[in-house]
Amino acid sequence: MADSSRSPLARSVLQQCLHAKLQVKPAEPDSEAEWVEINRGLVIYICFFKGASEEIIPKMVKTLLNVKLSETESGKYVSVLDLPGSILIIPQATLGGKLKGRSMQYHYNIEKEIGMELYSQFVAQCERELTANTKCAEADVVLKHGTYGNRQVLKIDTNGPFTHMVEF
Amino acid sequence: MADSSRSPLARSVLQQCLHAKLQVKPAEPDSEAEWVEINRGLVIYICFFKGASEEIIPKMVKTLLNVKLSETESGKYVSVLDLPGSILIIPQATLGGKLKGRSMQYHYNIEKEIGMELYSQFVAQCERELTANTKCAEADVVLKHGTYGNRQVLKIDTNGPFTHMVEF
Repeated sequence: MADSSRSPLARSVLQQCLHAKLQVKPAEPDSEAEWVEINRGLVIYICFFKGASEEIIPKMVKTLLNVKLSETESGKYVSVLDLPGSILIIPQATLGGKLKGRSMQYHYNIEKEIGMELYSQFVAQCERELTANTKCAEADVVLKHGTYGNRQVLKIDTNGPFTHMVEF
Repeated sequence: MADSSRSPLARSVLQQCLHAKLQVKPAEPDSEAEWVEINRGLVIYICFFKGASEEIIPKMVKTLLNVKLSETESGKYVSVLDLPGSILIIPQATLGGKLKGRSMQYHYNIEKEIGMELYSQFVAQCERELTANTKCAEADVVLKHGTYGNRQVLKIDTNGPFTHMVEF
């Protein structure tokens, strides 16, 4: 987690879901909108700040996939990998906003190209963890993710979002 | 907003919604679950930390109801009061969690009784602002809120949650 004496390099918000559906391609005159969806599992909203580099990705992935926030049938909390549950990753640059007067400013957000690269590395490493996990492979859980830079049209059903924030 | 040199006294997460529905009373053997819902507007998840007192409430209310995060038809961003949109307030103590190993700890969260009192003051002052606002009164927007200490079973539909975090 972020050393509290320095500014964070990345911020994530986690919510538990029963079902979540995210638009990954808006409708166009000649094509319908495209969506991805997951059932029970974890929604990860993610944002990178200036100064973040690929070095922080392995720790982020390890932390977020192993933190015990997913409730089992018996009310015990385990990681999304242990549940096992599906994962929906949503790029959410607005999480980097800082209030100035009545407006939000995003001066600390990472440059778009680097952010896009870190985002794809984050997604790829999460996918690798999920694939390597026997429980997840057997349970046929999935990882889905939003497209960077798009509007993240989202529908989410929860049994309590149990919202957490983790900074790195 | 929170002075970055001290720990925050309150943390809020804001999401824009097209529709949101929150359970305020779970089903019981002889009664169905009760829900509240709003259409277009702002979802405010709120959490208080140890040391918070009623003095911070007016500033929180003023800030959150006036920050320009609500998108108009023409793509301009205005406050939820100016939209005008409805408001759903969700007590979300989990937002105060701090990662320790693979678990979340809530040592910095406010004592339950004080938190409940601050939460009701926050809701009451938001209601007062909404009622006093001519645009909101004419548009017939509503304020709904969750019950403190309950599981916050939530369904939310967005056109992009546009998630922001504001600390106080």
